Amino acid sequence: MDSLTQTPLPRDHGGNLDAAMTVFGGTRADWLDLSTGINPEPYPVLPVPAEAWTALPKRSDMERLIAAARSAYDTPARIVPMNGAQGAIQSVPALRSPGRAVVLAPTYNEHAAALRHFGWDVAEAATLSALEGADLAVVVNPNNPDGRRSPPEALGALALRVGHLVVDESFADPEPELSIAARLGTALPNVVVLRSFGKFYGLAGLRLGFALAHGPLAERLAELAGPWPVSGPAIEIASAALADDAWRAETMQRLTGDAARLDALARGAGWQVVGGSPLFRTYACDHARAAQEGLATRRIWSRIFPYSDSWIRLGLPPSDRWAQLETAFAAL
Amino acid sequence: MDSLTQTPLPRDHGGNLDAAMTVFGGTRADWLDLSTGINPEPYPVLPVPAEAWTALPKRSDMERLIAAARSAYDTPARIVPMNGAQGAIQSVPALRSPGRAVVLAPTYNEHAAALRHFGWDVAEAATLSALEGADLAVVVNPNNPDGRRSPPEALGALALRVGHLVVDESFADPEPELSIAARLGTALPNVVVLRSFGKFYGLAGLRLGFALAHGPLAERLAELAGPWPVSGPAIEIASAALADDAWRAETMQRLTGDAARLDALARGAGWQVVGGSPLFRTYACDHARAAQEGLATRRIWSRIFPYSDSWIRLGLPPSDRWAQLETAFAAL
Repeated sequence: MDSLTQTPLPRDHGGNLDAAMTVFGGTRADWLDLSTGINPEPYPVLPVPAEAWTALPKRSDMERLIAAARSAYDTPARIVPMNGAQGAIQSVPALRSPGRAVVLAPTYNEHAAALRHFGWDVAEAATLSALEGADLAVVVNPNNPDGRRSPPEALGALALRVGHLVVDESFADPEPELSIAARLGTALPNVVVLRSFGKFYGLAGLRLGFALAHGPLAERLAELAGPWPVSGPAIEIASAALADDAWRAETMQRLTGDAARLDALARGAGWQVVGGSPLFRTYACDHARAAQEGLATRRIWSRIFPYSDSWIRLGLPPSDRWAQLETAFAAL
Repeated sequence: MDSLTQTPLPRDHGGNLDAAMTVFGGTRADWLDLSTGINPEPYPVLPVPAEAWTALPKRSDMERLIAAARSAYDTPARIVPMNGAQGAIQSVPALRSPGRAVVLAPTYNEHAAALRHFGWDVAEAATLSALEGADLAVVVNPNNPDGRRSPPEALGALALRVGHLVVDESFADPEPELSIAARLGTALPNVVVLRSFGKFYGLAGLRLGFALAHGPLAERLAELAGPWPVSGPAIEIASAALADDAWRAETMQRLTGDAARLDALARGAGWQVVGGSPLFRTYACDHARAAQEGLATRRIWSRIFPYSDSWIRLGLPPSDRWAQLETAFAAL
């Protein structure tokens, strides 16, 4: 049990550019916000029909969205649209009466926070095997921020040794081979997979995510989501985006190339690659806070972590802002 | 206790036009959907900045929305944006450990449904006084579908005699004098007020609502909502709409006039006014199902209720569809 701690996780997030601007100045247009792992080249937002704004989403609208998600996520499971992957995270603690939850850490801090708000006893663990025996185990795969990968086979085996297993695949879109979604079914009745729409499709403001599960667990998730968990514009835009195989393939390729380009810049500054995904990169440097401030003086906002003095995470810039990033790295 | 029953409430909703079209035919454009209480003349949807779609909402965006809501709802309470009033309804059961909830009935069926999903023992009551002693009491004010009004003074007194009191003011926008929102504070620490944005502003597809409360109860609601409960476009559009006093005043006047016009049509068909609000009207007729089918053959969809053979509810038509409604009533 010595791999477990009860230390409360920090609750700050990327995306807090407001705070950075207060300290470092500049206008919104000056800043390159790399503090999140959101694709900077979004799926194109076309005008949506008036009824998507005015009317409650119909059952047929939801079915259209779910069919598109099924093709993108390649799963036989029931798919429950949610108010962002975060909406699913807020629902997980109510799947069953509170008990002992163990989260593979370090990771995204909202899992532990949401569980604690519902009265769960939450611990962190450093290895998959240390999650065994938990009433509810949480694994983010690939993990944020360190990019740690848990093979689907290992997660399937873990599922047999915990009450419920939550696999947060918010960053799995560029690496479908990592996903356990295709295996969901009668053999894994206690597994919930979370998917984020906004990160890979670059539309985090839409607030759309999905919970995937089988049987009564899926029924429970749908009850918790309620009848209208997502907006009409989200349904319209995501139904087109998720069905667009060509855009998905091009985007996977572009993100992978851009991640390698960012790694080369970082290595040039003497940083080491800790890990990441094609949507974000985490590096180790001498002093994370000094590095963050150095980039901030060039109007680039990054993410550092309360539990590490050396880790710094960067998302990818849009194609027309690489020059700003290259200049900033050259000045570090 | 004989005013309480344990009969499960029905879960069907208005807005199920899909089903009506399957039975009665016609295209979407043929149909006049009056099965909900949503304002048919929406607040204008102007283009939103690209960042509202692509980025996570910032704290400053949320603060702008909350300031606009404070001016519209005239409350000193803390305002927690939610994924629709329905999102708030889904959060209420987690405010405290399950106990005995009593709902003033008949009313909107999702309150009881959400409470039961979290393990609450839910009863219905016919009078405010029969709610006394409940761990959690729910009053919809004005009530849907019968338009029953509970004076804020009476609700303030009731709050002293229950554990928690939820006042769902989803239809209160046209009648601000009914709202208990201005009284929230240290004297009412156990009261949650729910507000809907989509109904009065005619933008139900946006999925935006608010929970209003004081002190630790508000803190708990914010925890349950999580960091990004509403979409970027919802924040942009609603921040403008809620601050627009002129549009609100004009809309209140128009809705009131249109409700009277609808009542006159219904009385002409021999129906009696049961009650309602300026956003919907409930009538008693000889046979509700026959009346619904009679209107449906003219491509007008209405709402009837499993617990009444005589009640039929209609929303208001948009200004260019009154002729269709008049023709249909003339043929009844």
